[in-house]
Amino acid sequence: MDISKITSFKVNGPLKLSNQQTYEDFGASDKQLKKEYKDIRKDLGDLQDTLYAHGKYSVLVCLQGMDTAGKDSLIREVFKDFNVRGVVVHSFKVPTELELKHDYLWRHYIALPAKGKFGVFNRTHYENVLVTRVHPEYIMGENIPGIHSVADIDQKFWDRRFDQINDFEKHIADTGTIIFKFFLHLSKEEQRQRLLRRLNLERKNWKFSPGDLKERELWDKYQKCYEQAINKTSKPHAPWYIVPADNKKAARLSVASILWDELKKYKDIKEPELDTKIRADLDSYKEKLQKEKG
Amino acid sequence: MDISKITSFKVNGPLKLSNQQTYEDFGASDKQLKKEYKDIRKDLGDLQDTLYAHGKYSVLVCLQGMDTAGKDSLIREVFKDFNVRGVVVHSFKVPTELELKHDYLWRHYIALPAKGKFGVFNRTHYENVLVTRVHPEYIMGENIPGIHSVADIDQKFWDRRFDQINDFEKHIADTGTIIFKFFLHLSKEEQRQRLLRRLNLERKNWKFSPGDLKERELWDKYQKCYEQAINKTSKPHAPWYIVPADNKKAARLSVASILWDELKKYKDIKEPELDTKIRADLDSYKEKLQKEKG
Repeated sequence: MDISKITSFKVNGPLKLSNQQTYEDFGASDKQLKKEYKDIRKDLGDLQDTLYAHGKYSVLVCLQGMDTAGKDSLIREVFKDFNVRGVVVHSFKVPTELELKHDYLWRHYIALPAKGKFGVFNRTHYENVLVTRVHPEYIMGENIPGIHSVADIDQKFWDRRFDQINDFEKHIADTGTIIFKFFLHLSKEEQRQRLLRRLNLERKNWKFSPGDLKERELWDKYQKCYEQAINKTSKPHAPWYIVPADNKKAARLSVASILWDELKKYKDIKEPELDTKIRADLDSYKEKLQKEKG
Repeated sequence: MDISKITSFKVNGPLKLSNQQTYEDFGASDKQLKKEYKDIRKDLGDLQDTLYAHGKYSVLVCLQGMDTAGKDSLIREVFKDFNVRGVVVHSFKVPTELELKHDYLWRHYIALPAKGKFGVFNRTHYENVLVTRVHPEYIMGENIPGIHSVADIDQKFWDRRFDQINDFEKHIADTGTIIFKFFLHLSKEEQRQRLLRRLNLERKNWKFSPGDLKERELWDKYQKCYEQAINKTSKPHAPWYIVPADNKKAARLSVASILWDELKKYKDIKEPELDTKIRADLDSYKEKLQKEKG
């Protein structure tokens, strides 16, 4: 299996989403793909332990994608070999009343991972230029000065948001957060299949919500918003990756590989040294313990 | 291997810690113990998924024990088959300035697990009747009305804290939190061995702090405080378990088994039903999707 292709998933310049592949299997079977990501996630788990001990960086993994793109199961699979101590997952839903009383980045800011930890955002601050752009009436709930009606929300408004998001990410990158942004790129046909499966399988159909079909009708609008958001906010310190999502196992492998390939470049991530003063006294501490009666 | 003995780890009445075993291996090898807890943690992981979907309970796992008792590695092992989405670990260290500006339960309260999640407290609100009792001068940092000097901190003060902790736990239990409190019971000799190993192994000795030896000198005082705290706060809705910790694999198995044995009693934890109104319309949703062109 050759997965070198994943380097092309990184967004380096303006792109059209409709030209991006939604299916990829690296010429391998499900079984092979799973074996491969199992190996990588072990390495990632070890790296996480070192990152925790080192305590200077945090890692932010942003996941976006249409309904049924496979965000939840990807989280379950990719982080399976992590010590649960080292990773915190936040699933962002409709903002609460309290959250709406703050600016739109606030709830994401307070959920950022602490030094030494991985934070996973299942849906992210990008919903503020996606779902609210498809449904601009939601913006009214944010009580923004100068925005008196939906008519006030123009391209300038969204451009300002992209700038704000870029500034936010630049700041946290500069202060020690390593940022990854994954768009799980699903085809409309594959979503149809997955929704049908959800409806047909008795044990899965509690997950169904009629809202899923309503949003599906807005597919093209969502794709357009994704495309602009990705083009405006992919930066060297906070790149987007367009991960083909029609094959779940390949998508998991892609995300795990990208994390591993990028993080292993940080050669400074290692366990801390023992303080030299303490090291000088180590023998006396040993002696003290050895002399003690058991 | 017979692990039925673990039922005796539950505290049902006043006990003397010095009478409690610190070593247990259930007559099994390390390999057998590990295999056994691997099976149980799979079951636990499945149950966690259901608990998440059900969304009415949360589970609070409190871990206490002397330095080197194995809290960190136990967390790593017992929750290995959990979806990282479903468990949040909080390691409580020396309180920050902000935390000290609130009452001593505040930082624990805001860290409680959300509905559907497991929360693990690595060190817990019990430190407020343990480390601060061994070092009463720490209490002065809390700026408590009526406490002008260490001389004001008497048995009544600690009894009030036990009452407050009991009330806090009763409240969260009544509102849907399933509480487990584990004391990893280590012998002083085993701690000596573990500290020596930490000092002797180059790759481990960055974890050493001279403070570990200072606290070790206060061993008997700590045991006395643990004993009183456990006796005053073990309740049917928030029981303590004294887990022999000298054998790490047996301790992990014990904790996993206790969680599993207790949680499987909650027969009402299951995936939610699909709303009946939505169920009635399921066929029309299916039809709509089936008719769509791929």
